[in-house]
Amino acid sequence: MENIKSYVQQHKDRFINELIELLKIPSVSADTAYSQDVIDTAEAVKESLSKAGCDYVETCDTPGYPIIYGEKIIDPNLPTVLVYGHYDVQPPDPLELWTSPPFEPVIKTTDIHPEGAIFARGACDDKGQMYMHVKALELMVQSNTLPCNVKFMIEGEEEVGSASLAWFVERNQEKLKNDVILISDTGMISNQQPSITTGLRGLSYVEVEVTGPNRDLHSGLYGGAVANPINILAKMIASLHDENNHITIPGFYDKVQELSAEERAEMAKAPFSLEKYKNALNIADVYGEKGYVTNERNSIRPTLDVNGIWGGYTGEGAKTVIASKAYAKISMRLVPNQEWEEITELFTKHFTSIAPAGVTVKVTPHHGGQGYVTPIDSIGYQAANKAYTETFGVPAIPVRSGGSIPIVALFEKELKSKTILMGFGLDSDAIHSPNEHFGIFNYLKGIETIPLFYKYFVELSK
Amino acid sequence: MENIKSYVQQHKDRFINELIELLKIPSVSADTAYSQDVIDTAEAVKESLSKAGCDYVETCDTPGYPIIYGEKIIDPNLPTVLVYGHYDVQPPDPLELWTSPPFEPVIKTTDIHPEGAIFARGACDDKGQMYMHVKALELMVQSNTLPCNVKFMIEGEEEVGSASLAWFVERNQEKLKNDVILISDTGMISNQQPSITTGLRGLSYVEVEVTGPNRDLHSGLYGGAVANPINILAKMIASLHDENNHITIPGFYDKVQELSAEERAEMAKAPFSLEKYKNALNIADVYGEKGYVTNERNSIRPTLDVNGIWGGYTGEGAKTVIASKAYAKISMRLVPNQEWEEITELFTKHFTSIAPAGVTVKVTPHHGGQGYVTPIDSIGYQAANKAYTETFGVPAIPVRSGGSIPIVALFEKELKSKTILMGFGLDSDAIHSPNEHFGIFNYLKGIETIPLFYKYFVELSK
Repeated sequence: MENIKSYVQQHKDRFINELIELLKIPSVSADTAYSQDVIDTAEAVKESLSKAGCDYVETCDTPGYPIIYGEKIIDPNLPTVLVYGHYDVQPPDPLELWTSPPFEPVIKTTDIHPEGAIFARGACDDKGQMYMHVKALELMVQSNTLPCNVKFMIEGEEEVGSASLAWFVERNQEKLKNDVILISDTGMISNQQPSITTGLRGLSYVEVEVTGPNRDLHSGLYGGAVANPINILAKMIASLHDENNHITIPGFYDKVQELSAEERAEMAKAPFSLEKYKNALNIADVYGEKGYVTNERNSIRPTLDVNGIWGGYTGEGAKTVIASKAYAKISMRLVPNQEWEEITELFTKHFTSIAPAGVTVKVTPHHGGQGYVTPIDSIGYQAANKAYTETFGVPAIPVRSGGSIPIVALFEKELKSKTILMGFGLDSDAIHSPNEHFGIFNYLKGIETIPLFYKYFVELSK
Repeated sequence: MENIKSYVQQHKDRFINELIELLKIPSVSADTAYSQDVIDTAEAVKESLSKAGCDYVETCDTPGYPIIYGEKIIDPNLPTVLVYGHYDVQPPDPLELWTSPPFEPVIKTTDIHPEGAIFARGACDDKGQMYMHVKALELMVQSNTLPCNVKFMIEGEEEVGSASLAWFVERNQEKLKNDVILISDTGMISNQQPSITTGLRGLSYVEVEVTGPNRDLHSGLYGGAVANPINILAKMIASLHDENNHITIPGFYDKVQELSAEERAEMAKAPFSLEKYKNALNIADVYGEKGYVTNERNSIRPTLDVNGIWGGYTGEGAKTVIASKAYAKISMRLVPNQEWEEITELFTKHFTSIAPAGVTVKVTPHHGGQGYVTPIDSIGYQAANKAYTETFGVPAIPVRSGGSIPIVALFEKELKSKTILMGFGLDSDAIHSPNEHFGIFNYLKGIETIPLFYKYFVELSK
C-alpha cells in the first residue's frame, strides 16, 4: 500500500497531464462530424496501453468505431481480469452553459473538490475513469506487483448504444475469456463514503416523428381545422403517464421485478437528504411515481423521459405556423427482468395506436440494453470492497444505480463472468451535462485502489 | 375598363420585374440578422411610391422598423382612400423544403397557375399584394383617371405584431384621415370566384419557458425522480384542450360571439369539398372542435396552436439527458368580442397555475390583436364588389377568414373608418410556408381591379 501511494505521489502530475491530453480530443460518437476525432482517440488509447505495459495491443475493426484491445498475460494458470471502458463521450451541448470550453480541459477547485477537478467533456464519463486502469497497470508493471493476467477492451460507441461491442464480444469469446470484468463507469456516494454499484437499469431509446399536413401551414387559415403535429405529439407524450406517474404503455410493468419490503427497508438506510437533493438542483419539489421515494424512483423503478423535442418555428420572434412535422427523442430506463427489445416493441405499438387519424407516426428505435443486478457475495465484490476499505478507511456500501451500461448484461450472457462496477465519480460531476468534471482526488484514489482489487481478487481466488 | 386592361398588358413585364426585384431583399422582421434588409426594403418601397406618382413620400421613424408614408392629394373635397400594406415577410425556414431559394424569385407554372406564378417568400404575403396598389396608382396617374385622394401606409412589422404601427397610428390621426381603408393581405376563393373577407380572427401569441433542475441531468441517474421539463411542458400543452378539443383555459369562451343557426347555414353555402381539402394536405382526416365543421373551425371559432417547441438534445443520434429547460411558442386565434389582452392574461394565469411544484414557468407575451367583422352594406364593400364583378364577370362572395390582421380593429378604433379587405391570393399560395408563390394572373388582375374600386367608391360616395 505504501509503495502504491508513493508511486502515485511521484507521478501524479504526469498522470493528470496525460489525461488532459486525452480529453482534448472531441470523441463525440453521436455526431458524425467528429468521426476522425473518435478514431484519433482510439489510437491514443492504444498507444497508452502499450506504454503502460501491455505485451500486445490491437485496433480491432468493427462495423462502427474500432475497439482497442490490449493484454498482458503473465501466467495462463493465474486468474484474468478483463477491464472494460469507453473512449467516446457525450455531445457537449448546450455549449453556452459551459464555463470553460468542453474540449479545453482546465483544473478548477469546487466545494466538493478542494484539491481541484478537471473540467472537460468525458473527464469522468469515461475517459478519466477508464484511464485510471491504464495508469494502475503501469504502476503494477513498474513496481513488479501485477499478480495476474489482464486484458483491456476499450470501445468508442458506449454513448450511442455499443452496437459494435456486442458484435465484437459475440465473435471473440475466446480472446476475451476472463475470471472477472472490471468497469469504472459509475459513481460512489461521496469522497468519504465509497460505494459499489450492484444494479443498473436497462434502456430503450427511440425517436418519434409525427406528421400532419404535407407542408407547413398558416395557423390562421388552418388553425383549429387540422391536427397540429406539435399539439398532437404533446398530447401523445402526456398520455404516456397517468395521474400517479405510472407509465400507461400496456404490458410495460408486466416483468418488472418488485422488491420486497425488506429490500426496500435496506435501501432506505443509504444516507440521503431530500433537502440537499432539492437544493442542489434548485427545485421546489421532487416529482415521480406515486408510492415510491426518490432513491427508489431513480433506481428500482422504470421510467420514461423525453430527452429532446423539436418542431415548428424555434427562432427569434414569432411565426404563426402549423408545422408539418414534430419530433421527440424518448428513452425508457428499465429494471431487471424487463426485456429492452420487448419494451421497444410495446412502446412502438402503443405510440402508433394512440395517434389520431389526422396524423401519421413513425417510431425509430435507437438502441437499448438490459438491466443488471450483481450479487454481493461474489469474490469480485469482496475484493473490491477490501480494496476500497483499505484506501478510504471505511467499507463500501452496495447501491443500485439508475443509469444504464447496457453491455454488462451482454458480458454475463456471452462471457459467463460477473462484472464489478468500481466507480470513483460523484453525482455532482455533471456527466452528460455542461461543466462535466472529475476530482483529482477521485482520479488518484482510483489509481491507488485498482491494484488492491487485483491483489485481493487473486488472493481470494486461491 | 379597356384602357386599364391595355395599360396592364403594355406594362406587365415591367410590373413583374419590379416585384421580383423587391422580393430579392430578405426583409424578415422576426430575425434581427436581417435588419438591414428590412430597412433597405422600406427605402425601395418609398422610391416606388415616388415613381408611381405620390406627391409626397416620407420614411417615418418608429420605435421599430420605419413606416413608409406616401400621398397624392388631388382635391381636399374629394374622398380619400388609405392603402395599408406591409413590406416585411415571414422567416423562410425550413429552407430545405423550398424547391428554389426563397429570395431568388422565379416564375414557374402550376396546375392552378397555368400562366405562371412568382415563387419567393413574400410573393403573396404581402409584397406582391401591396405592390399591386403601387402599380394601380401608377396606372391611374399615367392615364389621368385617379378620381380621389390616396394615402399609403406601408409598415415593416406586420409579421411580428405591428407594435410600431399602433404607436404610429395613435400619433398621426390627422395625417392618416381617410374615408376608407383598403388592404390586400387576404385571399379569395379561386381565380374564377372572387371573394371579400368580411371577418378576421384576433390573435394572442405567447412564448412559454418551463424550467426544472438548474442544469441538464443524466436521465439514468435522475430519471423518474425529478420533473422533466419537456414531459411537463407536453402535459401542460395537452391539458389546454379537452377530449372534445374545447380549450380549457377558464374564461376563454366567455365573450365569444356565437353565430345563429341562420348565419351558420349561410356560411355552409360557400363551395367546399372536404375530400379535396384532405387530399390537398395529404391527411386522412380533419381534426378540431366537436360540434363545428371545418369551415367554422377555421373562421368563427377560437383556436390554440403550438407554433414551435424545443428542448433537450435535438441533434443526430441519442443523448440520455433531462433538459433543464423546455420552450414553446403558442398562438391563440380569437373571434369577435374576445379581447386579446384579456386572453393573454387568462392564458398566463392558467398556464402558470397548472405547473407542478418541480418546475417554474415563465410566459412572455409576443403580440396580439383583435378580431374584426365588417358589414356588407357599406359603400366600401359595395364598391369592391362592383370592381370584382367587372373584372371577374361574377360577384364576390363575402367570407370570414381564420387569419388575423390585428391592426384592422385598431384602424377602426383610432381612425374611425372601415377597412375593405380586397385579397387576390389563394389558399394554395403557401404563405408562411416553403414555396410561397403568387399567380401572375392574380397580380395583374389585382392591378386591374383596384382602379375600379376607386372609381365606384367615389361614385357611390357622391
